[in-house]
Amino acid sequence: MTEPLRLGIAGLGTVGVGVVRIIRQKANLLAARAGRPVVITAISARTRNKDRGVNLSDYAWENDPVKLAVRDDVDVFVELMGGSDGPAKAATEAAIAAGKDVVTANKAMLAHHGQELAEAAETAGQVIRFEAAVAGGIPVVKALTEGLAGNEITRVMGVMNGTCNYILTRMQGANLTYEEAFAEADGLGYLEADPTLDVGGIDAGHKLALLSAIAFGTKVNFEGVELEGIGEITIEDIQQAADMGFRIKLLGVAQRTGRGLEQRMSPCLVPDNSPLGQLEGGTNMVVLEGDHVGQIVLRGAGAGEGPTASAVLSDVMDIARGIRVNTFGSRAAELEEASPAKGATPAPYYLRMVLQDKPGALAKIAAVLGEAGVSIDRMRQYGHEDTSAPVLIVTHKIQRSALDAALSAMRETNVVMGQPVALRIESV
Amino acid sequence: MTEPLRLGIAGLGTVGVGVVRIIRQKANLLAARAGRPVVITAISARTRNKDRGVNLSDYAWENDPVKLAVRDDVDVFVELMGGSDGPAKAATEAAIAAGKDVVTANKAMLAHHGQELAEAAETAGQVIRFEAAVAGGIPVVKALTEGLAGNEITRVMGVMNGTCNYILTRMQGANLTYEEAFAEADGLGYLEADPTLDVGGIDAGHKLALLSAIAFGTKVNFEGVELEGIGEITIEDIQQAADMGFRIKLLGVAQRTGRGLEQRMSPCLVPDNSPLGQLEGGTNMVVLEGDHVGQIVLRGAGAGEGPTASAVLSDVMDIARGIRVNTFGSRAAELEEASPAKGATPAPYYLRMVLQDKPGALAKIAAVLGEAGVSIDRMRQYGHEDTSAPVLIVTHKIQRSALDAALSAMRETNVVMGQPVALRIESV
Repeated sequence: MTEPLRLGIAGLGTVGVGVVRIIRQKANLLAARAGRPVVITAISARTRNKDRGVNLSDYAWENDPVKLAVRDDVDVFVELMGGSDGPAKAATEAAIAAGKDVVTANKAMLAHHGQELAEAAETAGQVIRFEAAVAGGIPVVKALTEGLAGNEITRVMGVMNGTCNYILTRMQGANLTYEEAFAEADGLGYLEADPTLDVGGIDAGHKLALLSAIAFGTKVNFEGVELEGIGEITIEDIQQAADMGFRIKLLGVAQRTGRGLEQRMSPCLVPDNSPLGQLEGGTNMVVLEGDHVGQIVLRGAGAGEGPTASAVLSDVMDIARGIRVNTFGSRAAELEEASPAKGATPAPYYLRMVLQDKPGALAKIAAVLGEAGVSIDRMRQYGHEDTSAPVLIVTHKIQRSALDAALSAMRETNVVMGQPVALRIESV
Repeated sequence: MTEPLRLGIAGLGTVGVGVVRIIRQKANLLAARAGRPVVITAISARTRNKDRGVNLSDYAWENDPVKLAVRDDVDVFVELMGGSDGPAKAATEAAIAAGKDVVTANKAMLAHHGQELAEAAETAGQVIRFEAAVAGGIPVVKALTEGLAGNEITRVMGVMNGTCNYILTRMQGANLTYEEAFAEADGLGYLEADPTLDVGGIDAGHKLALLSAIAFGTKVNFEGVELEGIGEITIEDIQQAADMGFRIKLLGVAQRTGRGLEQRMSPCLVPDNSPLGQLEGGTNMVVLEGDHVGQIVLRGAGAGEGPTASAVLSDVMDIARGIRVNTFGSRAAELEEASPAKGATPAPYYLRMVLQDKPGALAKIAAVLGEAGVSIDRMRQYGHEDTSAPVLIVTHKIQRSALDAALSAMRETNVVMGQPVALRIESV
C-alpha cells in the first residue's frame, strides 16, 4: 500500500492549523513511518480569508464541511470543528455514508452520539478514531483500547480538564480565590467560550464517558455521569485539605460495581503524595487499572495546538498504516447498555461547616451524624469568630445517601450557618 | 475475519503461565474485542512434567521450540524463553521463515539481533512485536510507535529496571547498605539468575536500545549504550543527594545530538519532586518527549506475571485485530545506522570525595577542577574524621571529558583518599 492517504480537514482553529503544520513539515518522516505519503487534499472552515500563519493554497477549499466530507479525493475526514450536533455531526455522517474513515477531536459529539455514529461506521466498514478527544496528547484511547486489551478494566480515573486543574492549583499555590484564579485562566485563554463546559465538569465528563465505554464494553452514557463542577470550591477548603495531606482535584472515576456502572466527575480529595495529588497546572493524568496489569498512570499535556495535533496525527497514522480498530474497542452493536449505579461506592468524606458558637452546637451535629449512620474519623473545631465556629470533620467510609440524610437533618438543627461543604475522599 | 488466531507458546515460566491463564479465563472478552477467538494450540518448555498450576492438557506438546514455531496449526509464535541466542533465536527465525508472526518478551535477543530479525520478518511479510520486552505492563512500545507517530522524538528517558529501583529506594527509605538491599531483593526473587543483568544496567540498557531504535529511526545499537550499574552507589551518596533535594535512580536517557545518538544507562541524580524522583520500589517509568506532544510520562509495574502477560496479550490482540506495524516503526531495511555520540551532553555533576585533613587540600582540589574547566556551583566540607574530611561538590554544567580529566589529575595530588564518586545530575 503505497498510495497516499488523502485527508480532508474541516475546522482550522488551533488544532486544525497544528495538524496542517505537522503534515507539511514532516512529510518524509510520516511517509517513512506509515509506508505511504500522508497528504491533505481539501480543507474547510467558517471563514476562508484569514491569515492562519500557514500556507493553505495547495488545498481545495469547501465552504460546506459536508461537501468536503464526501469529496472523491478524500479518504479520511478529519473533523476539528467541535459542537455536539450541527455541521460536525452532519459532516461526520456524510463522510461515513460516502465510505470515508473519520478522525475527530470532538468529545461532545461522541459523548452524545458516539453509539449511533460508531454503529453507522462499522456497518459501512469504516472507522472513527478520537484520540484527540480525550486528554490531549496522551495516547490514552490507544493505551486502553489496544495496550490493555488483555485486561478486564477495573477502574478508570483521571484529571482530564487542564483548565480546572490550573484553577485549583493556582488557588492552592498562589492563595487566590476561585474568582481570581478563574479570571487568570480566562486571561490566558484557557477557558472554553462557554466556561461551564470546563468548570462545570461537562468537558471532562464527556471524556470520562468515552473512556468508560471502551473500558467496560458499554454504550457511551454521558447522561449517566454524575457531574459536579469546581465553582463551589473555596480557598478555605483547599487549605484545610492541604493541612490534612490532601489536594482537591476535579477527578473522574468510572468503575463497574455490583450495582451497575458508576461514573462520577466531581471535586475530590486525593492524597498529596499520590501521582494525582502531585499533578500541577494544566497537565492531565489518566489512571487505568486492569486485573492483570495493575495500575498504569499516563501523564501529559491535555490541550494546546501541539499535543492535540499530535493525537490527531496518531489516528491518521494508524489509518495510513492499515490499523483499523472499532471505535470503542468491541463492535458497537455488541456493546452492553450501561446501567448506571445508584449512588457512589462508599468512601470517606470531608465535611466543613460553620456552627453558631453556642453550647451544645457541636454535640447536636455529632448526634445528627450518628443517627444517620455517619461515623466520624476526625473532628476538630478550628479558628473561632465572634459568634461562629468553623468545624472540620472527616468521616469513615460511608454511603453518600447517609451523608445526604445527615446534611438535610443538620439544616433542621438551626446550629449550622450557611451551607456545609461535603467532598469525597477518593482512594487512588 | 472470524477464524481463530492460533498461538504456539514457547516458555512456560511465570510469564508464559500468565499468558495461558488469561487466554483460558478471558476467552469471551478477548474474542469480543478482537472480533475472533484467540486460542492456544501448542506449547513447549524445558520440562514437561511439572505442576504449573494451570491445565495444559488441551495443547499439543513439543519438546523442541523450533518444531513448535513451524507447526501448521500455529499462526503466531509466542517466544517467552529468553536468552539472546540459542533456542529463542533459532525458533524465532524458524517461525518467520515458516510465515508466522512473532510475539516476544525477549529484550536481550532483540537488543542483539533485532535488526536482522526485523528485516527477515518484513521481507517475509510477518511482524515481530515486543511490548513485553520493555517496561512490563506499560504499553510504551505502542505509545512510542503509534501513539506519538506524528512527532519527532527528542528524548526518551526511563527507570526500566524495577529491581534496581527497589534496591535504591530501600537503601534510601530503610537506610540499608547496597549489600543489604541487594540481599533483600534476592530473597524476594527479584533478581535475574545472573544479577549483573539487573544491577549492571544491562537489562535496562537492552530496553533503552529498543526504544531508541523506534524513537530515532535508527538500527538497534546496544553496543552504543554507555552502561554503568548501581553497584558502587553507597548509602552515603543517597543521603547526601537527598539532603540536596535529589534522588539517585538508574536512569536511561537516549537523545539525538549534533554529535550523534546518545544512549546512557547510569545512576543519575534527579530532582526529588519530579515524577522520576518520586518513583518508588519496583515500579517503572518511561518519559517520552516529542516536538509537538511535549512530555508524556508513563508509569506502571515493570515486571511480574500479570503485567508482563498483559503486554504479551496486547501484541497478540493487535495481531488478532489485523494491526500490523513494523518492528521498529519504520521499515527495518530503511533504518539509519546509529552513530553513537562521543561523550554525553554537558550536565552538572555531583562529586563526593574524601580528602586528607591537612592544610591546602581543599585548595588543591579546587585548583585542579578549575584547570580542567570544571566550574563549581556548590562545595562543602561536611562531617570530619580524625585524618580525613569528606567533601561534596556540585558542578555547573560541564563536559564529562573535562570532569574525567579533573578526576585523573586529582589522583596525582595525593590529597584524595580512595576513589571519588561522580554522578550526573539529569534535568528531567
